[in-house]
Amino acid sequence: MTGKPIGPIPPEFAAAGALHLGGQTADALVEAHGSPLFVYDRGVMAARITRFRQAFAGIDLHYAIKANPNAALLGWMAERVDGFDTASAGEIQFATEAAAHPRSSVRDISIAGPGKSDDELVEARRRGVTVNVESIGEAARIDRLSRDGDGPFRVAVRVNPDFELRGSGMRMGGGARPFGVDVDQVPVVLNMLQRQQVRGFHIYAGSQSLDAEAIIDAQRRTIDLAARLSDAAGIAPELVNLGGGFGVPYFAGDTPLDIDAVGAGLAASLAQRPAVLADTRFAIELGRWLVAEAGVYLTRVLDRKTSHGELFLVTDGGLHHQLAASGNFGTVVRRNYPIAVAARIGAAPDEVATVVGRLCTPLDRLGDRIALPRAEVGDVIAIFLAGAYGRSASPAAFLGHPAAAEVLVG
Amino acid sequence: MTGKPIGPIPPEFAAAGALHLGGQTADALVEAHGSPLFVYDRGVMAARITRFRQAFAGIDLHYAIKANPNAALLGWMAERVDGFDTASAGEIQFATEAAAHPRSSVRDISIAGPGKSDDELVEARRRGVTVNVESIGEAARIDRLSRDGDGPFRVAVRVNPDFELRGSGMRMGGGARPFGVDVDQVPVVLNMLQRQQVRGFHIYAGSQSLDAEAIIDAQRRTIDLAARLSDAAGIAPELVNLGGGFGVPYFAGDTPLDIDAVGAGLAASLAQRPAVLADTRFAIELGRWLVAEAGVYLTRVLDRKTSHGELFLVTDGGLHHQLAASGNFGTVVRRNYPIAVAARIGAAPDEVATVVGRLCTPLDRLGDRIALPRAEVGDVIAIFLAGAYGRSASPAAFLGHPAAAEVLVG
Repeated sequence: MTGKPIGPIPPEFAAAGALHLGGQTADALVEAHGSPLFVYDRGVMAARITRFRQAFAGIDLHYAIKANPNAALLGWMAERVDGFDTASAGEIQFATEAAAHPRSSVRDISIAGPGKSDDELVEARRRGVTVNVESIGEAARIDRLSRDGDGPFRVAVRVNPDFELRGSGMRMGGGARPFGVDVDQVPVVLNMLQRQQVRGFHIYAGSQSLDAEAIIDAQRRTIDLAARLSDAAGIAPELVNLGGGFGVPYFAGDTPLDIDAVGAGLAASLAQRPAVLADTRFAIELGRWLVAEAGVYLTRVLDRKTSHGELFLVTDGGLHHQLAASGNFGTVVRRNYPIAVAARIGAAPDEVATVVGRLCTPLDRLGDRIALPRAEVGDVIAIFLAGAYGRSASPAAFLGHPAAAEVLVG
Repeated sequence: MTGKPIGPIPPEFAAAGALHLGGQTADALVEAHGSPLFVYDRGVMAARITRFRQAFAGIDLHYAIKANPNAALLGWMAERVDGFDTASAGEIQFATEAAAHPRSSVRDISIAGPGKSDDELVEARRRGVTVNVESIGEAARIDRLSRDGDGPFRVAVRVNPDFELRGSGMRMGGGARPFGVDVDQVPVVLNMLQRQQVRGFHIYAGSQSLDAEAIIDAQRRTIDLAARLSDAAGIAPELVNLGGGFGVPYFAGDTPLDIDAVGAGLAASLAQRPAVLADTRFAIELGRWLVAEAGVYLTRVLDRKTSHGELFLVTDGGLHHQLAASGNFGTVVRRNYPIAVAARIGAAPDEVATVVGRLCTPLDRLGDRIALPRAEVGDVIAIFLAGAYGRSASPAAFLGHPAAAEVLVG
């Protein structure tokens, strides 16, 4: 019984038997909250945060809200991270609401993105949010807006680094990019920001890397670049956001990032940092790495059907909830996410099945010819790695089906 | 000034000068309704319907709501088509609301999809909607549900044809598919549906084809298949839905489908149809072909920025509104949709620019290195072919930006 490869089930959910999330079975959760359902396990997120704190002593941890803006998740995260990074006025709203809680540990909120509107910029100033300035044009707009009598903006310069994060899933720097200010334009931009409160730099080289050496190398270069830019401008930055880029294993053959190695490498780089950065705080901005593995998308089998000898498990979910798992969002070659029959994790496979969503389009394929224990109508299928860029990054209105429910457990 | 190729601007919008939509300029529409904005031009849709009626005399025209479920558009369409095809209980709701208008010409509403829930099936019965039955399992559920005393279901059998629509963008039939009932299973399914009101067949071979001969061939085979299945079952179907599959030109080199040739080919096939189909009505189900070219996505330039010598026009739109144009929905190789500076259609290009959305992801590329007349900050960029699988098929919540407005004009 050999199917196509699937990605590795996150270790917290890989134990044989019925899938448990926060002490409840997947079946019980679906019974209580409906199907399809996104479940986010606080225990998994907490474990990631603990690992980060152990590996990166003294480094600020920021959560990138775009990975998962669920309000309950943000409220939980607000008590455990040092900052929130946002990408819109909407996310600023989510971030400030979550950070307003008395137990919140969030002390920095920032906004990044190549296309901030004037309204967004003014809203950021009003909320005390640091604007990561991404172009000469944006710097000019901020300068103009700051002359309205309502005071300066808190800003950092987002730099398009002159190097890449090797082996990253998405290149965010190096070469021509819409993100950040080219290194040679940074002095001009800093000069245009003289009326603002300049906090430092934001330098993001890539994302979804599983290669510790590549991240260590990128972080070392990032520190060097921040130092060069600071020296040239005669400023001692208060905060340097080193970006993130920490990947998680999605597909067969992926191995987890060695976070301890990255932490040790960063500590070594920081120990040798130039004097201009002696008093600088450093932050790492993580979305996917903190939440992706904590999320599981649960969907019930609506039909078992055989067509031309191939078995299809038709579920009540689909790409309208979890586009990424269908391979239609930023991937060239479709590969299978980790997927299982929730009641029988680790059971020997009985059959090869293609798991599809309910949408009337051939794109809606959640698992392509995978070996599974037999699943009957009504059984719950678990699709892992659903915590980041899942529900909020999917075309929810497509074909008019109900939205998926969400629940935090653990 | 040579950029990468772009697709052809629909003829109704290709006139040199300021882009006009329903008699108003794109700039005036954005001024009135905000940016970004989806504009749907009734004149273009009306022209497509007229062309259909001329080419397909006596054939029913169904609109596939999933292409664009905008309520105003559906209300307009309800006065001009013979049926609505839906894909969910949500779309049944949209369809019945639109069809309830006194001037509605809609006499058939159907629902298709591989994963219909029991609730959806019962809702379809309550609303008099024809259920396109797609599997043995679904037939069994309908049989069970129909024993509740509330009467039979109106059903058709959706057949997975034993041929393909050659050259189609998405294969919906031929080989193993989650859609429809394999030809050899149709007798079993019809037998299971004895308690229901069986109306006929729904046979859909593929979509987005620009090849008239391929469509003529598929329609001829569809008629033959419907006749064979009818003869075998001893039924004279009231209605056969021939599917659609009519494509529109999205990309450079695409040429329009010769709809008159398809109409003539279908008439010839029907003239020779077997006796069992003598009194059958035939329907063609179209989504994309009716509305794609009528829609334009308008988005304002927020920033002009140069990175490593490459010019980026950063807009206030993005893939959260129009995922398909970014090349991240069902396409393997990213190609440019037709795109223009709205105030200067047909003007000689001044520069090569990459048009990006405002999202903080490298996926958010709306036009890749295209030759354009110079666009300043505030200018409106028009991205064509936005009427089908646009706003409703995009991840609207991704990054927390506002939804795009929609307006019907003309």
